[in-house]
Amino acid sequence: MRYELFYWPGIQGRGEFVRLALEDAGAPYLDVGLGDARDGLGLPAIDSYLNGDATPRPPFAPPFLKAGNLVISHVANILQFLGPPLALVPDNEPARYWIHGLQLTVSDWVAEIHDIHHPIGPSLYYHQQEAEARRRAVAFHQQRLPRFLDYFERVLELNPAGPEYLAGGEHCYADLSLFQVIRGLQYAFPRTMNTHRARIPRTLTLVERVAARPGIQAYLQSDRRQPFNESGIFRHYPELDTVA
Amino acid sequence: MRYELFYWPGIQGRGEFVRLALEDAGAPYLDVGLGDARDGLGLPAIDSYLNGDATPRPPFAPPFLKAGNLVISHVANILQFLGPPLALVPDNEPARYWIHGLQLTVSDWVAEIHDIHHPIGPSLYYHQQEAEARRRAVAFHQQRLPRFLDYFERVLELNPAGPEYLAGGEHCYADLSLFQVIRGLQYAFPRTMNTHRARIPRTLTLVERVAARPGIQAYLQSDRRQPFNESGIFRHYPELDTVA
Repeated sequence: MRYELFYWPGIQGRGEFVRLALEDAGAPYLDVGLGDARDGLGLPAIDSYLNGDATPRPPFAPPFLKAGNLVISHVANILQFLGPPLALVPDNEPARYWIHGLQLTVSDWVAEIHDIHHPIGPSLYYHQQEAEARRRAVAFHQQRLPRFLDYFERVLELNPAGPEYLAGGEHCYADLSLFQVIRGLQYAFPRTMNTHRARIPRTLTLVERVAARPGIQAYLQSDRRQPFNESGIFRHYPELDTVA
Repeated sequence: MRYELFYWPGIQGRGEFVRLALEDAGAPYLDVGLGDARDGLGLPAIDSYLNGDATPRPPFAPPFLKAGNLVISHVANILQFLGPPLALVPDNEPARYWIHGLQLTVSDWVAEIHDIHHPIGPSLYYHQQEAEARRRAVAFHQQRLPRFLDYFERVLELNPAGPEYLAGGEHCYADLSLFQVIRGLQYAFPRTMNTHRARIPRTLTLVERVAARPGIQAYLQSDRRQPFNESGIFRHYPELDTVA
């Protein structure tokens, strides 16, 4: 099965959480948004799903994944679908609900991180809401960032199988997503993240473990890995990298 | 099986989406947060899960559901778990991924609605971020609210089985959640929502259908249904109910 990933070109964005799972597993996929409109790909292909021409079940927004006749929206839903065939989730029900819950916590975290630079709304440019963004960044760094960092560190610490993985003794898709959030935060807020190094030793070890996985290592060195930039979720605006 | 719902007392909040499913199906459940600490319930019971005393897999935040030995976090995850035993989801895989995706769109919408009154962050009071909230309300009402309303109206319109249900020819848990969001928006923003009546006829018909279901009707008239208030997600602050 060749999967088709639909996501906006030009940014890692939320699509990157899906790419990491596909790349880690070495699964064949077509990155539709990065293709050419003359080949039936690119933005017009994405739009045909969003506006309901291509499916009577239109997603609200990218990313979405096409797998045969299935069209699946939302990162957490896509990863839950891909988990079993890509061997990125254990074969037991309690672990699957637990890992999906962890992934939904990642989704909430990512939304909060995005809204640091867009506190008033996605319809305005950053420069139109920079004053509010500066205020939100302070609140985020003081309250929310430590809370999320401490949570995942504690999940690793409490894992009865040891702190190597988020869930039990096996690598799973949520490990890949935690890797991506930490790398994104380190890009966007290097000073702030530096002050937190000592509180998240297990998390930082997990990030290194994920980066060394053969599929991920190859992907990160390839030109398929788009760089972080100031159009994506994790934006490096120095004025928002305020150490609390 | 008697389910145990863990959610903050005093507000409908995100827990209400779970309550509606349990009440619609007539499923037995214990609302732990509303119980008394002297009976081992209430806030201390919630806290024992969050801090990891009661489980090595602590949720990040309420709501979470205990079902036997399973502890499941996040509204969408809980509803996906409850769907089959409560007969609130069809027995086919494509429909289940579609409905879970719709529920995750509801989650995104609810987060945006909450952040209207908390654009800088949840650690500050409303009165400390009222100026930013006023600005965010305008952007939400102009851009985001019509986009979400139009989306769900279009999902109903495109349903090959007709516009009565979100998915196929069967009632599902996402119908209940759409009901709750619309009722919440009508409470919080009556003037704004009035201006949108004509654009969402199918959605408003769905809301009436859900309200008339025996389990929901009985619940809404019971004292188990807590009223909307200004501590929850949907807050009626007249200064934020600005007609675009």
